[in-house]
Amino acid sequence: MAAAQSGSSRTGRPLAIGIDVGATKLLVAAVDAKGKALRIVQAATPAADGPDAVVRAMLDAVTACQGGPDGTLASVGIGFAGQVSGGVVRSSPNLAGWHDVPLATRLRRRLEVPVALTNDARAAAWAESRYGQARGLRDVVFLALGTGIGAGILSGGVLLEGAAGSAGELGHVPVVAGGRVCNCGGRGCLEAYAGGWALAQEARRAARAHPRAGRALLALAGSPARIDARVLARSCAAGDLLSQGIVAEAGRMLGVACVGIVNAFNPEALILGGGLAQGFPQLVADVRRSVRAASLAPARRVRVLRTRLGPGAVAIGAADLGRRKADLPA
Amino acid sequence: MAAAQSGSSRTGRPLAIGIDVGATKLLVAAVDAKGKALRIVQAATPAADGPDAVVRAMLDAVTACQGGPDGTLASVGIGFAGQVSGGVVRSSPNLAGWHDVPLATRLRRRLEVPVALTNDARAAAWAESRYGQARGLRDVVFLALGTGIGAGILSGGVLLEGAAGSAGELGHVPVVAGGRVCNCGGRGCLEAYAGGWALAQEARRAARAHPRAGRALLALAGSPARIDARVLARSCAAGDLLSQGIVAEAGRMLGVACVGIVNAFNPEALILGGGLAQGFPQLVADVRRSVRAASLAPARRVRVLRTRLGPGAVAIGAADLGRRKADLPA
Repeated sequence: MAAAQSGSSRTGRPLAIGIDVGATKLLVAAVDAKGKALRIVQAATPAADGPDAVVRAMLDAVTACQGGPDGTLASVGIGFAGQVSGGVVRSSPNLAGWHDVPLATRLRRRLEVPVALTNDARAAAWAESRYGQARGLRDVVFLALGTGIGAGILSGGVLLEGAAGSAGELGHVPVVAGGRVCNCGGRGCLEAYAGGWALAQEARRAARAHPRAGRALLALAGSPARIDARVLARSCAAGDLLSQGIVAEAGRMLGVACVGIVNAFNPEALILGGGLAQGFPQLVADVRRSVRAASLAPARRVRVLRTRLGPGAVAIGAADLGRRKADLPA
Repeated sequence: MAAAQSGSSRTGRPLAIGIDVGATKLLVAAVDAKGKALRIVQAATPAADGPDAVVRAMLDAVTACQGGPDGTLASVGIGFAGQVSGGVVRSSPNLAGWHDVPLATRLRRRLEVPVALTNDARAAAWAESRYGQARGLRDVVFLALGTGIGAGILSGGVLLEGAAGSAGELGHVPVVAGGRVCNCGGRGCLEAYAGGWALAQEARRAARAHPRAGRALLALAGSPARIDARVLARSCAAGDLLSQGIVAEAGRMLGVACVGIVNAFNPEALILGGGLAQGFPQLVADVRRSVRAASLAPARRVRVLRTRLGPGAVAIGAADLGRRKADLPA
């Protein structure tokens, strides 16, 4: 990786870079004013090695990404997998050692450009409001349906952070008082019914309890222990009734939660993204139906849509936040 | 009521007025920069007579409230019982004929001073953040526990409105998927377990089903049909076990909902107000216990408190919002 900026990268148009810092990978993109990724660099996140190692990996990837003739680094935006507020990473569930790290300041000092810092779900919500299904809207909820469930919330044009950076943890809103135990230690959380880990758990349980009805799942996975959300999605798409029943129940719970989300935030658009929104497209219809049937009249007109932005959405949204921080032309 | 402003009211210090427009009563207060009500005028809200009649009643009450030697009307703030966004009353459940009424503009034209408009729960949340238990905080949820349940949410110093002005309808966040039918038509809403109407309904049901266990309730009310939340509160305070059981169950559901609220918004303070917070003080402890036990670590440090502001809170918060709109010294 190039250690220093080349002379040519110091000339030309201002270059906005966005960084998606995930628990396993870093995705760095040079992004134009229309939200198009001009160049993408991926690297592993040294998540176990602490903040210094992660910052070094980020700087290396930024250097690699800007190494070209088409611009001078002008701004950086970061979407970080953790609790973020006021330019500080407060904590992170999957990256070790991140407690109150002033990441924006650290990168600004090293790169000498304005740096915007938010979390990954908020960066994705911002990308939706700028370039995606919610383009131009000021009240948007982006629900990230993956192994866990998180959200980015734009209200009146502002991304909600909360006091400790953890606003938007909608996977941990209870939908069944006293219900299933969640990974977080709580009970009845949405995530315990509709998160990827919960779907996989439920599919394994069902296949073990009913090996006959679960034979499609077992055939795809090889053994109950190897059933995961991906196997469930394939089995579902192939028409397996047991699998479809499991996903239907998750869709019902997701619908119930989204009625609450729509009533609480009154967004114009509710965008579903993440691996489950791709793997289980029926969830979008489940949510739409629930929201139409059961949310309050003023909130009911919300558009419920699946994201069309690709895996670069977090970096692209973050880049635009950086661009704004630097007052670059949007 | 004085029809015209007296000469003396046109001199002296700038006067900030706040108006609480409820479904049954108008409360108008002249409020100083420290949030103290200098003078209060109350009138009935002609809720059934439509917006023109309500606006006339508001103007009359403002005139009555400013009729004194101690200031010149400089700003007005309104906390309105309905869905409000962008200075417009979008709709109202309990005042007839309010559909997209530009109330802020109408009052500004008549009174020739800046007018701020928000809804009642948001005005109360603002009052808490300025003069109440959440003084100086920027992330505050105020939960209004009355016959119905609503909320005002301050996030990062901004009051959330939502696309159609209905952000904060936390009474209609489901806590039991497929649970009790709510007044809103939905199922399992918090309000259907912990709203004043639901508590009264449950107490009536229990007293009818178990007249022996319900004899304390029946003795206080005279007949099952006359049991309401007020009777339940008295019966509870007197040590009646059936009544306490009903309130404990409501407290459990309120606790579950508040875990979700704290995880979704990550406030520094969660303030409980409204008639039920006064009548059933144990609810505050129920919520505090649930939030400590079950919310996410970054959100758990929230302070859970009962409001200490009196019935003038909405007008006082609204007055301060008006004061800011007019750039008066705060």
